Amino acid sequence: MSVITVVGSGVMGSALSVPARDNGHEVRLVGTHLDREIIDTVKAEGYHPTLKRALPQGVKAFQLEEIGEALRGTDLVICGVNSWGVEWFGERILPLIPDHVPVLAVTKGLREMADGGLEPFPHYWQRLVDSRLSINAIGGPCTSYELADRRHSWVHFVGEDPAVLRSLKQLLETDYYHISTSTDVIGVEAAVAIKNAYALGVAFAVGLQEREFGIGCTPAYNPQAALFGQAAVEITRFVKLLGGRAESISVGLGDLYVTIFGGRNRRLGTLLGRGLSMEQALEELKGLTLEGTMIITRAASALRKLESRGLASMEDYPLLQHMDEVINQGTPVSIPWQAFTGTV
Amino acid sequence: MSVITVVGSGVMGSALSVPARDNGHEVRLVGTHLDREIIDTVKAEGYHPTLKRALPQGVKAFQLEEIGEALRGTDLVICGVNSWGVEWFGERILPLIPDHVPVLAVTKGLREMADGGLEPFPHYWQRLVDSRLSINAIGGPCTSYELADRRHSWVHFVGEDPAVLRSLKQLLETDYYHISTSTDVIGVEAAVAIKNAYALGVAFAVGLQEREFGIGCTPAYNPQAALFGQAAVEITRFVKLLGGRAESISVGLGDLYVTIFGGRNRRLGTLLGRGLSMEQALEELKGLTLEGTMIITRAASALRKLESRGLASMEDYPLLQHMDEVINQGTPVSIPWQAFTGTV
Repeated sequence: MSVITVVGSGVMGSALSVPARDNGHEVRLVGTHLDREIIDTVKAEGYHPTLKRALPQGVKAFQLEEIGEALRGTDLVICGVNSWGVEWFGERILPLIPDHVPVLAVTKGLREMADGGLEPFPHYWQRLVDSRLSINAIGGPCTSYELADRRHSWVHFVGEDPAVLRSLKQLLETDYYHISTSTDVIGVEAAVAIKNAYALGVAFAVGLQEREFGIGCTPAYNPQAALFGQAAVEITRFVKLLGGRAESISVGLGDLYVTIFGGRNRRLGTLLGRGLSMEQALEELKGLTLEGTMIITRAASALRKLESRGLASMEDYPLLQHMDEVINQGTPVSIPWQAFTGTV
Repeated sequence: MSVITVVGSGVMGSALSVPARDNGHEVRLVGTHLDREIIDTVKAEGYHPTLKRALPQGVKAFQLEEIGEALRGTDLVICGVNSWGVEWFGERILPLIPDHVPVLAVTKGLREMADGGLEPFPHYWQRLVDSRLSINAIGGPCTSYELADRRHSWVHFVGEDPAVLRSLKQLLETDYYHISTSTDVIGVEAAVAIKNAYALGVAFAVGLQEREFGIGCTPAYNPQAALFGQAAVEITRFVKLLGGRAESISVGLGDLYVTIFGGRNRRLGTLLGRGLSMEQALEELKGLTLEGTMIITRAASALRKLESRGLASMEDYPLLQHMDEVINQGTPVSIPWQAFTGTV
């Protein structure tokens, strides 16, 4: 039995308590300053109000000011913050983690570097801690609700050190939580980050169909599949551009598949496809964090900078470019079919 | 205006009459010996009984014995037969086509070669006609029903000659039927053929969920997405093994996406996942052609032969191997999670 401390009590960090407890580990769940009510409820009732499920017996909840206690003697720290908490986790939490305790992050996204490039969060965190801690991450298609319900899920643990990855896999693998390992941190992280962008883009087709035939109409799959295929083309280009291995895109494509069937990025893409402005759509989705829009904006901005240095061409990313125009310039959704040049 | 002759009046061949007529071409639809009733109905009412839609005004229907008239002065022959009609089309129809009239096939699949390898149908047909005719094919996510309804669809026209591909694209492209071209015949054809196999495999997860929680239960997407990711891994390996270009798999993945949402392969996979034997499942689906089972059997057989020659390893295709066992050996569905080694 090991001690696992989860920092950030959002839905995914909290759902990981299920395989962790099933494997008999002690689980300590620490809320951020935004999670105060969640932690209060877990402490009082053992129930997670946004995951909408009782957490496993024995999960111990901690408010942020109790983090010292939660980190004492821990064997693994899981980072459960979202994209907006990346710097906070790096600057405020990493320094508190005892030497040589591995870190495993569920946070998906890419960070802008000073030169206009993009880096995966684990690389940023690793720079902050040098060799004092090993930073690893989870990528792959796994919604928190279904993990909490013990549905079969297949994820990749990525990091620099295969031995650390094997030990993390051993800690958390169960007969429903299936884990592969990969040292292609850039490839897997780039693929699973950018997939949030394309989930929004594929959902444009859902909204466009509803705009023409009314909400609740028979869905059309040819347009969604066309956008899925173009997403696969662009994700492959993007992963290679950032230095990832092409085979890692499979992780992102499985993740794209699951993301299209639910969640916030699909809802936003659908609303925009229906013809709502970004302002109107955000009004309707009030209170939801939208990691898809963050990654669209960041990736498009980085690609433009790389293009100006002759290292990339925006023409290779017509769907991403259109999503950026819709999100950031108020352009109405209109799929750039002619720009989908495919494989030739 | 050109004359386009469609041989095989199944749903996809017939649906292509919609963009063809929208572009003002004369369309002649020829039934095979299996299509006699369809052609009778089209002749009498202009209605296609399996596509369940009226065909566009002006489509001329021909019984097989009238094919000579239908081919007279034609500018393009579209092959609309299914996988079981490939040899028939090659041996009986190709000799009737006037010299230098291009052929464009919608048939998806791979053919066993004498040495145990697999070849795409266009390569087989091209050998039969040498340089007398140019054989081309359509790959990509496009269901016939939605094409007939003029939903946005994006396909690839593949063939050896870019000039011919460009002329075919010009004949058939409309503002809803979007066409890219590719000379990677093997890559695109292998990807779109094998996707029928994996659509069945992804549907195993649908049936397994229903088996545990009852038909009509809330679907679980993590398991489907895991299988989708593994399908992407195996399709990539398969396309490369056959000599296709890795970037062509995007066409197959869009096609996999659309195939999962409907059609016969999903229905069979779901029934098998529920625990029905192959015999029981086929009983329930009586009368449906199942191209997925044909490609599973052929691909698994070819891979075993290639393995015995040291050219491939079945270990790289655990999901395909399991599907073959389920289809051909009566093994109950049980996802080989441990064999999904992912990208490392």
